[in-house]
Amino acid sequence: MPETFQNAATRTIQIKDARLVYRELGERGGVPVVFLHHLTAVLDDWDPTLLDGIAKRHHVIIFDNRGVGASGGQTPASVAEMAADAIAFIEALGFAKVDLFGFSLGGFVAQEVAQLRPNLVRKIVLAGTGPAGGAGISDVGAVLQGAFQKAGAEHKHPKHFLFFSPSAQSQKAGDAFLQRLNQRQADRDTAVSDQTVQAQITAITKWGQAANPRETLKQIRHPVLVANGDEDIMVPTANSVALFEALPNAKLSIFPDAGHGGIFQYADAFVDQTLHFLAE
Amino acid sequence: MPETFQNAATRTIQIKDARLVYRELGERGGVPVVFLHHLTAVLDDWDPTLLDGIAKRHHVIIFDNRGVGASGGQTPASVAEMAADAIAFIEALGFAKVDLFGFSLGGFVAQEVAQLRPNLVRKIVLAGTGPAGGAGISDVGAVLQGAFQKAGAEHKHPKHFLFFSPSAQSQKAGDAFLQRLNQRQADRDTAVSDQTVQAQITAITKWGQAANPRETLKQIRHPVLVANGDEDIMVPTANSVALFEALPNAKLSIFPDAGHGGIFQYADAFVDQTLHFLAE
Repeated sequence: MPETFQNAATRTIQIKDARLVYRELGERGGVPVVFLHHLTAVLDDWDPTLLDGIAKRHHVIIFDNRGVGASGGQTPASVAEMAADAIAFIEALGFAKVDLFGFSLGGFVAQEVAQLRPNLVRKIVLAGTGPAGGAGISDVGAVLQGAFQKAGAEHKHPKHFLFFSPSAQSQKAGDAFLQRLNQRQADRDTAVSDQTVQAQITAITKWGQAANPRETLKQIRHPVLVANGDEDIMVPTANSVALFEALPNAKLSIFPDAGHGGIFQYADAFVDQTLHFLAE
Repeated sequence: MPETFQNAATRTIQIKDARLVYRELGERGGVPVVFLHHLTAVLDDWDPTLLDGIAKRHHVIIFDNRGVGASGGQTPASVAEMAADAIAFIEALGFAKVDLFGFSLGGFVAQEVAQLRPNLVRKIVLAGTGPAGGAGISDVGAVLQGAFQKAGAEHKHPKHFLFFSPSAQSQKAGDAFLQRLNQRQADRDTAVSDQTVQAQITAITKWGQAANPRETLKQIRHPVLVANGDEDIMVPTANSVALFEALPNAKLSIFPDAGHGGIFQYADAFVDQTLHFLAE
């Protein structure tokens, strides 16, 4: 019986100076899909609908990068170092070729891995993310602060404001998403430390302030599926369009009336799209 | 029993100097959704899945504008005149408020109607379309010619090249779409005349060559759902993004691995999105 999001065992593996935690879903075999996480996220923060949907046809691997959640070491303050750690993790598991699924910060890391080790990567999903130097990305600190203030005032989870649009439909999808994140009760991961959050925010801010790399993006020749909601305030949606336009072999999926977490709001539709993309 | 795409009677109504043909689907009552057609299209060229899907909850009206199909009169060679005729048609039917669904050329007409008569319009769906002066729109003649050449060489319908992406998945969706268009056998419409096609191409070319109206678009304050495939070669996808960015109250839906007919390729998903948009 293949493991699911609900019951996947938490495993560990040593990379360089740190022991990373990870979980595996779905049947082993074929090119695995390695998921790269967002700011503050640990193993339990992936949407079970999305992961189990993809794991129905693919070997899925989620992990906490260095310093994150229950993983050891100090979280580095640059996307390039996070990418080097991700490569070390993939190689430690013995994989010669993987698909990458990067969400938000994880999408920055995925772009970097694809450039550093093009032959290690087959296909890439870039969700709720953008290119280095992309518009509005370096405002992450202010956006977070605004969302936490609203969340406090309205007694809601900050993800209601960060991941979903203000409409009734999107807010309802936000409730459902947050409930799904609580489905797994046993063997939950450790929350991120302040050091990790600070280092991740620094890494994101630097990524947003970097030179705009249209030429660099052209070097990512892998098939890429770019996806987002149409009202992302964390990595503004224009960045998904910019990725689609600059990457030589990209597809674009934009969901209406949805924010940064559009792929969670439309999890079923997005699973279909992702399975098609990975299969073709 | 409400009429469906398959069995809706063809009716006529007089506007100014011409008698126009139209059909009505779904239950009467509420704000009707008036569909504005694309280049060369007649009543039978709408996707039954899309129309019946929307007609499950809305009164749907399709019509041939002046000179098109079995409608009388000469097709005008400008979007503004087509919009004036569309307004005359809506008013002749006695409606004080309608939703507009404009696909491609019909989306140009919808924008013009919304500007000429803002109070006549509640909500607007703009699919496979773009703003006046939008990138690549005036190349329509060359794009058509290329598609007809490919269609001849590969013994396929030109819509395979005009409406769908080259991928196996999209081409298969094209087969299914073309089959759906043949579901209705009785009381089919007349094909467009050469005069109509020439006038429509002239209107589209002039629209594409017009000044870019970012300021004008800001005046369309209606809720708008903008939709397209990610690889539209007729009204390039960047135009959908430009509409979404310029319109003050817009949502954006982009379907991956899909062309100008992305809303037909993903008809079920798009019906869901449209019903949500019209209901909220």
